[in-house]
This record gives sequence, structure tokens and C-alpha cells, in this order.
Amino acid sequence: MTVSRIMNAKGRTVPTRLFGWEKAFEPYQGPFTIVEKKPIRKRASAPMRGYLPGRNKVAESLKKAIEASGLSDGMTISFHHHLRNGDAVLPMVLDVIASMGIKNLTLAPSSLTDAHQCVVDHIRSGVISRITTSGLRGKLGEAISYGELPCPVIIRSHGGRARAIEEGSINIDVAFIAAPSADREGNVTGAMGPEGCGSLGYAMVDAKYARHVIAITDNLVPYPLVPKISIPQNQVDQVVVVDKIGDSTKIATGAARITKNPVDLRIAKNAFDLICASGLLEEGFSFQVGVGGASLAVASFLREYMIEKNIKGGFGLGGIGGYMVELLREGLFEALFDVQSFDASVTESILNNPLHIEIDQSQYANPFVDCMVNLLDVVALAALDVDVDFNVNVLTGNDGIIRGASGGHCDTAAGAKLAVVLAPSFRGGIPTIKDRVQTIVTPGETVDAIVTERGICINPRREDLLERALKANLPVKDIGKLKEEVERLTGKPKTPEFDEEKIVAVVEYRDGTLIDSVYARKR
Amino acid sequence: MTVSRIMNAKGRTVPTRLFGWEKAFEPYQGPFTIVEKKPIRKRASAPMRGYLPGRNKVAESLKKAIEASGLSDGMTISFHHHLRNGDAVLPMVLDVIASMGIKNLTLAPSSLTDAHQCVVDHIRSGVISRITTSGLRGKLGEAISYGELPCPVIIRSHGGRARAIEEGSINIDVAFIAAPSADREGNVTGAMGPEGCGSLGYAMVDAKYARHVIAITDNLVPYPLVPKISIPQNQVDQVVVVDKIGDSTKIATGAARITKNPVDLRIAKNAFDLICASGLLEEGFSFQVGVGGASLAVASFLREYMIEKNIKGGFGLGGIGGYMVELLREGLFEALFDVQSFDASVTESILNNPLHIEIDQSQYANPFVDCMVNLLDVVALAALDVDVDFNVNVLTGNDGIIRGASGGHCDTAAGAKLAVVLAPSFRGGIPTIKDRVQTIVTPGETVDAIVTERGICINPRREDLLERALKANLPVKDIGKLKEEVERLTGKPKTPEFDEEKIVAVVEYRDGTLIDSVYARKR
Repeated sequence: MTVSRIMNAKGRTVPTRLFGWEKAFEPYQGPFTIVEKKPIRKRASAPMRGYLPGRNKVAESLKKAIEASGLSDGMTISFHHHLRNGDAVLPMVLDVIASMGIKNLTLAPSSLTDAHQCVVDHIRSGVISRITTSGLRGKLGEAISYGELPCPVIIRSHGGRARAIEEGSINIDVAFIAAPSADREGNVTGAMGPEGCGSLGYAMVDAKYARHVIAITDNLVPYPLVPKISIPQNQVDQVVVVDKIGDSTKIATGAARITKNPVDLRIAKNAFDLICASGLLEEGFSFQVGVGGASLAVASFLREYMIEKNIKGGFGLGGIGGYMVELLREGLFEALFDVQSFDASVTESILNNPLHIEIDQSQYANPFVDCMVNLLDVVALAALDVDVDFNVNVLTGNDGIIRGASGGHCDTAAGAKLAVVLAPSFRGGIPTIKDRVQTIVTPGETVDAIVTERGICINPRREDLLERALKANLPVKDIGKLKEEVERLTGKPKTPEFDEEKIVAVVEYRDGTLIDSVYARKR
Repeated sequence: MTVSRIMNAKGRTVPTRLFGWEKAFEPYQGPFTIVEKKPIRKRASAPMRGYLPGRNKVAESLKKAIEASGLSDGMTISFHHHLRNGDAVLPMVLDVIASMGIKNLTLAPSSLTDAHQCVVDHIRSGVISRITTSGLRGKLGEAISYGELPCPVIIRSHGGRARAIEEGSINIDVAFIAAPSADREGNVTGAMGPEGCGSLGYAMVDAKYARHVIAITDNLVPYPLVPKISIPQNQVDQVVVVDKIGDSTKIATGAARITKNPVDLRIAKNAFDLICASGLLEEGFSFQVGVGGASLAVASFLREYMIEKNIKGGFGLGGIGGYMVELLREGLFEALFDVQSFDASVTESILNNPLHIEIDQSQYANPFVDCMVNLLDVVALAALDVDVDFNVNVLTGNDGIIRGASGGHCDTAAGAKLAVVLAPSFRGGIPTIKDRVQTIVTPGETVDAIVTERGICINPRREDLLERALKANLPVKDIGKLKEEVERLTGKPKTPEFDEEKIVAVVEYRDGTLIDSVYARKR
């Protein structure tokens, strides 16, 4: 197969058409170029469907529900990944679909986790022929990276996925929604039930735009579902009751406690110092942070500072973990806006605290709506590797295998006044700062600083920030020099070999342009 | 002007085209005929608009906001009527629009109240040339009834308006939303602020579908608006701060206390007895009632019965008044779903009680979504007059002048298992039961019983209900006989004279077909 390729504004070669996908792509031009050029974009919509009084929405079985949905060969199905590594719904649904003989589906989940390795088998048997997702991992990541799927995967950020659904680039025929609680009329929430997962922010977009919506629950409650409805009944066509939608204890990955690792603590302290020096830590400031070791430590430094200086933040945004919930409880933020909860403990807060507000993926980050990432003062982000131009890769490993996710990384970096990327200067003997990052997910022009345990590298575009950091006596280093310093310890890293003829995935920037291509790993 | 006219399934003559409106109309065929024939209907959508970080949404003035919205001649503007007789926003906005010289607008509010009499002047000066609304009253109703507006008014029910907006029959260019509270980013609620009006259920639909949304508030609060957001910031383009959006004490019309009028009490008791006899008053039953004297008395009989029999209802729906809030507080219902609050006192409940749930006009009653009226067991409704075929008029007075509103009348009657219409047998010497009701808003085939102080008339279609009523020894009367009984007291009523050449309004049934025409009143 030949596709025409073009060089984008990052100097990366990207295709204009993708084998197996109808859509034509434009190359990446700049973080807000498309938004500024053509701010108005048509919005897709789900059809309306009239019902007579007295209909029954509870299906006898998952199979009957799928039959009633009209799902057939070549259609698009979606799932959410709020149950993360504990999700049992995607595997369950794909098994039933496979047993029904339906083929050639497009799989358009919000992301794919370790719980979704079964997708490999469904690719091999022809049930799944196209995938668009935020991330891929494990043997599924390997299978894709070695070229097992003829149609390249489209990697989308959370904001980009919302945009794609809302503009009609992703047309969901049937959305399957793992529902920690539901009632017989289809009201759904993630804030109650034995497998409560907190926010259903990703699923909320699917429910609004999919042609047909099936809620799958292991906790059918009496009507009406109170006191919390995340997705209202008029957006759900059928309800299916199953034994178990998954295991919510597997939502949290890794330690939710503050790290004691001295490298992580050093990174966090450097990042916190930079945030302080930036002048943004004022009354009403807004903040997003991940749940990794160093990120959580940043939040804890922040907490101490806010208490000491008697500062109250405006809002916390994003994936919300237990630590942010504690800050809300302590009155250190006015509100949390939660598109995804990072551990099951958040569920109680989203249920009972009206200051903990569930938002959908579109309101979170779609660049073609007035999204909340645009209001962020500070975001603290992680990275797999970065380069001297401040580009960030959160998708492919040093071995060239896809093992990550785009997530909200490029969305928040673009929106926030200060986007700080935290990373150790090397991992497993391989330096983090490269000459040229393997896969660009977040363009360097939206990253203000890269913070390691060995120093802080400030994007030359941010002279103002550099000045403030120097004034505060922070350990600022030129990124090229830091790269050399690390390479003296580790040596130059080897790069994996790729078959550049074969694109296995493309990375779509949040505005729909292509920012990078992922090539097939040579065996 | 000549229009082609056709007889509909109610034997009423209706046009197929309307002067000044592009849309072609089908005649009414039956309450669910269109929904059954063509359940799928395309959904319209508002365009998406991208913003850069750092934009300011708070406009300097209402005029600047209107300029920025791009409003120009011939466009469509919308308003909500949650502030009812206390609304100051519609008059304020029309004044500014008029001063800007913009003409020929289509006015598409959720309804027009006594606070909106200024519309007459704007019709005369050419600012407003078309109107679609739920209701008209006062000198505006007179002006329309005497034919001052060349284009007939389209009267729509609440569910019908939501359907019209969602299918694109009403294309709102600019929605003006009176906002009892808003923040600088455009989050809006009716549940807080000096002029709190409770639910913003009608405005919620406008905000989703309008091309441009302007929130007008007299209570700008620090960001973010917590703990209650009714319309989220990503649906609002601009915020305008004014001195006063209106007077919330004027939301409630008439006494909110239980009537002591013996006629009303007799009607209410008869209605309650029928509801009891119907067998629907069981655990989990759902209910909607108005706030008129007799309706409120029905609710109070209901309350006593529920306490005595230890029955807990499922949900209360609809326009929610203070009495229903008391029932919720007493634990007599699981939840209230509130599309419109009938008095300002409801505001505190919608703010603080998570069992009091704000829903939009579409979820309430759009027949082309899985709307909540379809889940009603019992609705108690009022009437201006009715006829021997159980058709109900809630729009035109005995003098032929428009002085009412379609509201949710035909929506709830169609959806509920039992629709009971309460009316005194005569008012001001004029009998309520006619041979042929002046204007059909709600078709008799969706009305199960008409209850007066002189007896209960049961629709012959409901033999089951008749049997139950007779078994319970209720004062059942044939509707024709009751009509004659009343006419012996009052005499036959005179009918006003109309110019049947000139249609001044059409009554659209909730599915978009025309159920009746309103002709010009002869002077």
C-alpha cells in the first residue's frame, strides 16, 4: 500500500490518507493554528428516537441487546476505560460479538488498558479491523507495533477524541457503557455500586453522540437512581444486567501514597519551586496533576505552601486522585472538575460532595469548545522521554513498542499557563532527554519546562519564566547541556529499528491534524 | 393570502403551509401515530467554536454582547420564562435590539407571560415579525387574536418546543438566558441568587442548541459557580452583568395554599377518589400535578393517603411547586424531576437536596426522545374548557382571545397512564363542557377523565376505569348528560365570531403535526 506523506510543522513525516480509514488528514501546523484559522466546526448529532409509554429497556441478555441495537459488520463500537485495569465489560462484549459472527468492527474506546489484551485475539479473528484509542499496552501494544493490524491505529488525546466524536470523525454506532449503577430506565452513574469508578466523563460523550447506547451493570437499583445521575435515561437505549462489570480495586495503578524515592522527591521539589517562582500560585489558581510518585509529591508540597500562605485555589482539574480529594476536603480548592477518577476512593466524594463536579471529556479538553484545560494555571505532567526541543513522548517505549497513552497530555499542555513535565534524567540506564524524541505526542511549543532531579530546563520561548527561575536561584540548566551531562553517565542510547514503509499508528494532535507517525518495529 | 387547508383526524381544518414560515405542516393523526410511523428523527446541533486560552467572556454591556453575537435582521432569538411574571430580561433585551435597529426577528421563547406585554410594541415597530411560544396573554394575546401579526403564531407544547429545537424546526441564533447566578466563564444556575427561580429546564435546551448563548445575570459570583451548575460554561458564549434580571417574588401566581373554596375541594376530592379507584396508587407510583387550587388539594389528599397507607411514591414530575417539595422532604417520594419551579421557595430545595433533580425540557417531554412523561402514572391537569369528546382547550378564552398556554398539558396527557382533567362545571356563568371545544390543545383520546364538582366523566375508551369507578361508588356521569345538566342552569353559551379566512395562530401537537387553528377574532 502506498500513501502520500508530507512533512508537518514538527519536521515529522505524516500521511495524508490512512489505509482503511476514509478521513483525510492535515499535517500538524501549531498548537492553535487550526483553532484560530477555522474556529467554527460543524457538530455531529445522534438521531432522536421516539418511544411509546410502557416500553421495557432492560434486555434479557447482552446478546439480545446487541441484536436489538442493530450492530452489524463494519460498524463502530465504543467503551470507556474508567475501570482501567479492572474492566470486564469490553472483554465480555467482544466475546459475545465474536460469538455472533460480527466482523470488521472499528473499536473506538476512550483508551485500552492491561484489561483489554483480548483485543489481540479479536484482531486476529477479524472481529476488530480498526482501532482508535488514547493508548495501547502489553501484548496488544506489541501486536500493533509489529504490524499485525493492516489499518493504522489512530491515537487521540482525550480532547481530540471528544472533538472527533463531536465533529463526526468517530461515528459510534453502539456505545457499551460499563455502569457501576443503573436503574431500569437507563439512568447511570459511576459514583455508586460495588465497582464504583467515580466520574464517567468519557462515557458521557459517547452517550450523547452514539446512535445506540447499551448500559451494562452489575448493580441495578430501584428507579430512580438517586442521589446521583451521571448519564440520564434519555441517552440510554438498553440496560443489561450482568454478574460483574469488573474489579474497581484495580483502577488505581501504583502507589497512591507520596513517594519516598529520593529522585522523585528531588524532581517534585524542583517542579514545585518552579511553580512557586512562576508567580501563578495565587488565590484562585487552578491546577492539574497526575497520580505518579513525583506528581503526587508536587501536590503535597503545594498543600503545605497553600496552608502556610493561606491561599485557596480555584479548581483542581482532570484525572482526580484521592490526594486531590483530600485537598478539596481541607478547603484548599473551591471545586474539583473530574473527568476520570484515578482510584475507587474518589467515588464517595463525587457522590456526596457537590463541590466535586463530574465533567465530560468534551468540556475537559475539546479544543473546539470552550474547554476547561484553557483555564488551567499549572499542569504537572509525566513523560516517557523528551527532546532538546521540549517535545514529549508518552506513547512509545525506548524499544519502539507502544506502551502508553496520549491521555490529556497535549490538551493540558496547550491550555495551561504553565506546563511542567517531570521526569528522571534517566531510567534503566537510558537517558530521558533525546536529540529527537521517538514519538511526538505533545509539541515542545506547549511545554514550558522539563524538570529532572538534576535540574530544570526552561523552554527558550519562556524568557519570562527563565528570568523568574534565575531570580529564585533555581537549578536551571540548558537542556542540551543536561542531555550531554546524562549521556556522559549512560552513554548515547541505541535507537530501535523500524520499517519506515509501514505506519502502524498515527498520533493525532487534539485539533485533528497529524503530529507524528509510529512505524512498524522490525522483528 | 391563501393557504391550502386540510381536515385533520380531529375534524379540525388546519393549514399545510403558513404565511411567513418555511416549514410545511402535516395534520394531526393521533397521539402516537407519527412516533410509531417514523420513530427516528434527525437531530440538529449547534456548531462548535474553538477558543484560545485567556479569552474574556464577560461583555462590557448588553449591546456589545448582542453586537458580538452577530445578531442581525431575520434571525431567531430565544428566552426562557422561568421568572414568569417577574421576568425583566426579555423586555430589556428587546429594547436594546430595537435601539440597534435590528428588525424582523423570530421570537422563540419557552413562553410569554404578563411580563412580556412589550412584545406588542415590538411587533408594531417591526422588530418582531414571527412568534413561536407555548402561550400568550393580556394585550399581547389580544393583539395576536385580532390579527396584528401577519405571520400566524405557532403554539407549541413544552415537549413540542424541545422537539422543534432538537430537530431544527426552531433554529435559535442567539439565546438570551436570564441567569439568577453566573460566573465569569458562563456557568449558570437558577438555584442561587437574589432572583433564584429554581430549575432552568427550558433554558437548558436553548443553551445546547443555540448558535450563540448570552447569559444575563445580576449575580456574578466568583469562579467556579458552586455547588450547583445548571448550564455548564462550555454552552455559554458571553456573560452580561445587569442591575436586575427581574423579580422572583412574581414567579408564583395565585395562592400556593390549599384551597378552601368548596367547589374546588369537591373537584379535588372527586379526582382523588378516581385516582384511588384506578389502582395506580401503589408503592413507587409517579405523579404530576399543577399548582392551581384544586390541583394542590389533590396533592394534599394524596399526601394523607400515602401517610395512612405507608406508600412511598417513585417520583414527582414537572412544574414543581412548594407542596411537592414538602412531600419530598417528608420522604413521600424518592425524587422530584423538575423542569420548571412554580415558586421561588423551591430554589433552596433544588440547590441542596440531591433528590430534587433539574431536568431539561427535552427529557421532560420531547416525544422523540425517551421522555419522562411516558413514565407518569397519574397527571392532574386543568382546563379552560373541554368538550363531549374529552378534547381540552387551555389556550383561548370563551371570548375567543388567546389567554393561556399549551405548556406540558398534551405531553403529560399522552404519556401518563391516567390523565385527569379538573375543572368546575361552569365559570362566570359559562359552562365548561362544550359540544365542540373552541381550540383543541390536548386531544380527547389522551384524556381519561374529566372531573367536576358535579361528577366524574370517564372517557368511553377507558371501560376498565369506568368499571373501577362504578365499583367504588364514585359519582360517574355521562359527559353529554352532565353538559345538559349544566346548560339547564346556565343556558347555552354564545360563541364568539371569527374571521375564518384569517388564521392568527396554529396549535402544533407535540409531534409537530397541527391539531387546530385559531382564527382572527372579529372586532
